[in-house]
Amino acid sequence: MDFGLSDEQQAFAHAAREFAVGELAPNAAKWDAECIFPRQAFARAGTLGFCSIYAPESIGGLGLPRLDATLVFEEMAAYDPSTTAFLTIHNMATWMIGSWASASVRDAWGPPLACGEKLASYCLTEPGSGSDAGSLTTRAEKHGNVYKINGAKAFISGAGDTDVLVLMARTGGAGAKGISAFVVPADLPGITYGRKEDKMGWNSQSTRAITFENVEVPAENLLGQEGDGFKFAMKGLDGGRINIGTCSVGAAQGAYDAARRYMGERKQFGQPLAGFQALQFKLADMLTHIVAARQMVRLAASKLDQEDPQAATYCAMAKRLATDLGFQVCLDAQQIHGGYGYLKDYPLERLVRDSRVHQILEGTNEIMRVIVARQILEKGADIR
Amino acid sequence: MDFGLSDEQQAFAHAAREFAVGELAPNAAKWDAECIFPRQAFARAGTLGFCSIYAPESIGGLGLPRLDATLVFEEMAAYDPSTTAFLTIHNMATWMIGSWASASVRDAWGPPLACGEKLASYCLTEPGSGSDAGSLTTRAEKHGNVYKINGAKAFISGAGDTDVLVLMARTGGAGAKGISAFVVPADLPGITYGRKEDKMGWNSQSTRAITFENVEVPAENLLGQEGDGFKFAMKGLDGGRINIGTCSVGAAQGAYDAARRYMGERKQFGQPLAGFQALQFKLADMLTHIVAARQMVRLAASKLDQEDPQAATYCAMAKRLATDLGFQVCLDAQQIHGGYGYLKDYPLERLVRDSRVHQILEGTNEIMRVIVARQILEKGADIR
Amino acid sequence: MDFGLSDEQQAFAHAAREFAVGELAPNAAKWDAECIFPRQAFARAGTLGFCSIYAPESIGGLGLPRLDATLVFEEMAAYDPSTTAFLTIHNMATWMIGSWASASVRDAWGPPLACGEKLASYCLTEPGSGSDAGSLTTRAEKHGNVYKINGAKAFISGAGDTDVLVLMARTGGAGAKGISAFVVPADLPGITYGRKEDKMGWNSQSTRAITFENVEVPAENLLGQEGDGFKFAMKGLDGGRINIGTCSVGAAQGAYDAARRYMGERKQFGQPLAGFQALQFKLADMLTHIVAARQMVRLAASKLDQEDPQAATYCAMAKRLATDLGFQVCLDAQQIHGGYGYLKDYPLERLVRDSRVHQILEGTNEIMRVIVARQILEKGADIR
Amino acid sequence: MDFGLSDEQQAFAHAAREFAVGELAPNAAKWDAECIFPRQAFARAGTLGFCSIYAPESIGGLGLPRLDATLVFEEMAAYDPSTTAFLTIHNMATWMIGSWASASVRDAWGPPLACGEKLASYCLTEPGSGSDAGSLTTRAEKHGNVYKINGAKAFISGAGDTDVLVLMARTGGAGAKGISAFVVPADLPGITYGRKEDKMGWNSQSTRAITFENVEVPAENLLGQEGDGFKFAMKGLDGGRINIGTCSVGAAQGAYDAARRYMGERKQFGQPLAGFQALQFKLADMLTHIVAARQMVRLAASKLDQEDPQAATYCAMAKRLATDLGFQVCLDAQQIHGGYGYLKDYPLERLVRDSRVHQILEGTNEIMRVIVARQILEKGADIR
Repeated sequence: MDFGLSDEQQAFAHAAREFAVGELAPNAAKWDAECIFPRQAFARAGTLGFCSIYAPESIGGLGLPRLDATLVFEEMAAYDPSTTAFLTIHNMATWMIGSWASASVRDAWGPPLACGEKLASYCLTEPGSGSDAGSLTTRAEKHGNVYKINGAKAFISGAGDTDVLVLMARTGGAGAKGISAFVVPADLPGITYGRKEDKMGWNSQSTRAITFENVEVPAENLLGQEGDGFKFAMKGLDGGRINIGTCSVGAAQGAYDAARRYMGERKQFGQPLAGFQALQFKLADMLTHIVAARQMVRLAASKLDQEDPQAATYCAMAKRLATDLGFQVCLDAQQIHGGYGYLKDYPLERLVRDSRVHQILEGTNEIMRVIVARQILEKGADIR
Repeated sequence: MDFGLSDEQQAFAHAAREFAVGELAPNAAKWDAECIFPRQAFARAGTLGFCSIYAPESIGGLGLPRLDATLVFEEMAAYDPSTTAFLTIHNMATWMIGSWASASVRDAWGPPLACGEKLASYCLTEPGSGSDAGSLTTRAEKHGNVYKINGAKAFISGAGDTDVLVLMARTGGAGAKGISAFVVPADLPGITYGRKEDKMGWNSQSTRAITFENVEVPAENLLGQEGDGFKFAMKGLDGGRINIGTCSVGAAQGAYDAARRYMGERKQFGQPLAGFQALQFKLADMLTHIVAARQMVRLAASKLDQEDPQAATYCAMAKRLATDLGFQVCLDAQQIHGGYGYLKDYPLERLVRDSRVHQILEGTNEIMRVIVARQILEKGADIR
Repeated sequence: MDFGLSDEQQAFAHAAREFAVGELAPNAAKWDAECIFPRQAFARAGTLGFCSIYAPESIGGLGLPRLDATLVFEEMAAYDPSTTAFLTIHNMATWMIGSWASASVRDAWGPPLACGEKLASYCLTEPGSGSDAGSLTTRAEKHGNVYKINGAKAFISGAGDTDVLVLMARTGGAGAKGISAFVVPADLPGITYGRKEDKMGWNSQSTRAITFENVEVPAENLLGQEGDGFKFAMKGLDGGRINIGTCSVGAAQGAYDAARRYMGERKQFGQPLAGFQALQFKLADMLTHIVAARQMVRLAASKLDQEDPQAATYCAMAKRLATDLGFQVCLDAQQIHGGYGYLKDYPLERLVRDSRVHQILEGTNEIMRVIVARQILEKGADIR
Repeated sequence: MDFGLSDEQQAFAHAAREFAVGELAPNAAKWDAECIFPRQAFARAGTLGFCSIYAPESIGGLGLPRLDATLVFEEMAAYDPSTTAFLTIHNMATWMIGSWASASVRDAWGPPLACGEKLASYCLTEPGSGSDAGSLTTRAEKHGNVYKINGAKAFISGAGDTDVLVLMARTGGAGAKGISAFVVPADLPGITYGRKEDKMGWNSQSTRAITFENVEVPAENLLGQEGDGFKFAMKGLDGGRINIGTCSVGAAQGAYDAARRYMGERKQFGQPLAGFQALQFKLADMLTHIVAARQMVRLAASKLDQEDPQAATYCAMAKRLATDLGFQVCLDAQQIHGGYGYLKDYPLERLVRDSRVHQILEGTNEIMRVIVARQILEKGADIR
């Protein structure tokens, strides 16, 4: 067992931190307040390889393990969880296209996505199928050389601002096995984008519903085979859960760092906040929970990298724990800031708002428990 | 012991609910989104007596117990905690003026405040003295018939939109005993308002810093005697803590009602959410915590009404418990709504943002514990 | 609304405290260590009316409200939750016999039970039907003038040491409506008692399984009518839940009192524990939770006294909250005592062990949530 | 980074599990109930190397890393945390003697301790210095070739049943630097053992106070140099905290395994408990918390093995988290067992009682927070 980072990993994390400090930190509040999708920041992230960290080298990706990706995302999320989270979604979609697209589609879309010149959205959720992905109703019907797509998606990150969609649609009968995955250029005729959703946070990501009306997609845009979609989606979600967990760890670290600094500066009753034992204890627990959450995320990433048969269970546990603990740390850091923590002049309230959604999406934390329970009770898995 | 509401109390609460449904519910989201201070809504609340529920009848107040005030505020907070919370602050300031102002000031300001024609802000907090109110540095120096006021206040609710300020300033030496309270017309020369603060919530209340530069206030605008200020402030805060606790109970009830409704409507995996045991348990705990929080608030209000020597301790306990439990209920209700709970189309995320600050202000929940601990450890109070 | 105790109630509580200090406090540790069922202490409690607080006056009971009973039980549980809890069970069984027994049975058993000369056990739970009371399988078949009883009960408090059993058995078909209640003398032929259970706590109560083999009970020993049993059992449990909740409040108060005292005496790092802010905060939260739990229990008792249609729901909420908070307070008080809290020389570890079972029995706290959720989701009850 | 166990580690853990199943599982309940110190079991553990896992090979120890020791202790604690915890104390004392004793003392005591033929106790705590170890008052005064020891120790595990004591006593002035460590044969004249403490749990370990009255110890029995004692004690505690954390992880795993099994067997309302979603979620969270706790303990052990400058902080965080989460898991598992979880026929209540003390000793969890807070606030350590 070895819990240390290699020199390469440390250098990689360091590069991410520098990027975060230079590009995200100065802009995150503004992107949040004005709901700006920072297209150029993603492009600059792409120049560092951060748009395709674990995508295959065949499309220009770094081909690194998931574990390494968590190092990058965590550093960035300390300053801007919303922007970072979109980057993780783009990475996921890019990895899917790099891994399972037909050669022509892969060659057309892979390299520009890998370098951040183009951006991708991931279209799984529907208005009526939030946690119950297997019940989705968007249909793709094959007519000769094309699939005709009809249906609607909801809560799509980046929708309206991205160039390509990785779309799950039903080509077969009911249930998970009838689902296929497609690469769909975002500007095809028949695609309509809903209004930009007003959200509690994650404001640097535009979120929109999308409707598909007789959208014609070339048959070669199918990912893998017909019926592979749910399997791909679940594989994507495993990694997605690590990514979201990592974003919570990063947000918590950012909040903790701010609280620690503030406790040294702010005085009340004649001494710095750092002198009050109850706050000392709170801060100690915050750090403890961050370290624990980070370890869980890294453990899950490692299981995924090794294709452990229980990787999905570890991913579910890591997502549940890291997003719950991470949100609580953000709240605690805000509390330590008193009234100032409630103002937008400080990053705390934004970290709270942004990290809140991590408990909800990529499968709610309730669904994470369903996943874990099914493995240990129905399947009898002996997980330790 | 009797836990029931009288017919009058039920009628009063019913009137408040009707007002809330008619005036607050349709507008709360807009006031939040556009940061509108709803002056007219307060005026309409005034026509029902809600601007001076426990202010003395001598100024046109209803002269009711604090306990009755909680009934009104709770109903309103279920739809709009931010607007309600400002109304509670106005009630507090109006009660102070009605109780302790000189006859001329009372007669000039009392009636218009009591009916909501004029509005009042409460100025205690300073940039450097958040929780440590006794250390405030704004000075009021007597020069003949006037006090000259110099200093700065921070986090003042309604500042810039209200007509009169109840201001705490130092007329004597260091410590709590050197503090006096004044009634200060909001437009006196020398008063400057800072920019409107950008906040996580409580957006229907403008919050601003205020600076006082040689502001001349007639001597008759002193409340009570010189040196009474801290005592008045603390009495105000006792009631203020009940009010804030009540706003959290109300917000939680509103969130719970929404979640209960949603669980009956929203289907996943082929059945309504109401069919999932883990969500059933969550909802049951939410209700249990609301009922417990409400009882604590009412108990504390009753102690204050009866001038129980430990009333301040009960108020601190009630504020701590109700704001913590209330916020958690709002989070739980948001979680039950899944992704929709994160959208501004639903009230959940607003209830979360608004109720968050209740744990911070009117004395942070950490200060509440300081108050309780001092009574039971230093003073040896046997509280049950 | 009125949260105060009347003079009579205060006097009653005072008498209970004196009894507890004189009879329970000096013996509780010994009764626990040596598993002694303190028959004489119950008799002495009987002389004060504590064996039949809410039983009807027709059998010599005090005929007081449930609310008053909580005052007595809480005072006693502060010193000995186990002994007090048995007393509450005896009170429940006595009240049932006083309320629903035929005249001859009521006259024979009521008075000696009411004064504590005889003691009663309550027999509902079976090995296979813990939380699922409606599925019990013990049968009572009518043969002329007698019922023949066959079956087995488990976890019966006092079994082997009491004089009479209030027994639930099936006289009809499956489900709740087939259940009837009987008054069964504890020494009838065919009744066999299992070995005394070794338990984590509640050691002053003997707990045994009971088997019934062709036990013949006169028909007049039926309580109410055939088929009334489940209804009686549920009515009994409502009160039982208040009683158990009260025992947790009492245990928590006893633990808190000990911790408060200890914090003033024990020094570490050159000052009393009372000087450490983190412990101050813990103590403040303990008190807050005790006060909240007590209010919930009293509210529920009041609802039961008034025959509120939602009384059962309030009882379930109160039991859940009070036993969870009460146990946590006991743990916290133990923690404050450090290593000494783990020793039997101090009452803390006993309070922890005794109060632990309150979360489990009289319906587990999971079942409490089932009850609450059913009312608010299935029945649509609007509980506040 | 690598989270997997090597083949050797797996084999080692497997051997520990076999030992635990064969030697501990059948006897743990009896040792607890009858307060038996299982001397022979320790001897058998010694034959497998478990009495000196990280002690140096020079005395016959296995010389393995701390991380490997956690694997062994965790497996054993799943069946008997009390017995295992004593074994960890013996390992610690043996390692100290193996590392810092003079050659003659090391050769005399090291080998028999390493193989479990002799057993050692660790004597740091005093009646008046629980958490505040630096204030201890037991004195050792040098008179020629011997130290004369006077004072008293409290809460000594194994005292009265062990052969040698590693004793901290003051040779110099006040404070940590005046403390030295000694190897003291347990039967020296002047050593008196107090009565066996009656405890909530940890009953297979005798706990006694010890008084030292002019006890003469040869000068060569000093560990290291005069004044090294506190440093040695703290080093010992770092490892001790990992060990206790591991015992909690093990206890939790044992409790979880039992609960999982029980949920498959026990039926209520017509289905196994495994069918109830609320219990499924509870079980999923239990597993998640076990995995998180285990990772924290292993991370801390790894930091200690690598002599990371922040190892003590990681040990404190791991002990805090693992003992809190572990205890909660034991409570949850007990709750799932309903009334049966309260009976001594099942291991649950014993696991609860045994793991409870882990939050208290080896530095209370409050002291753990003090340690962490001091590093991050006073020392400014940037721990991640």
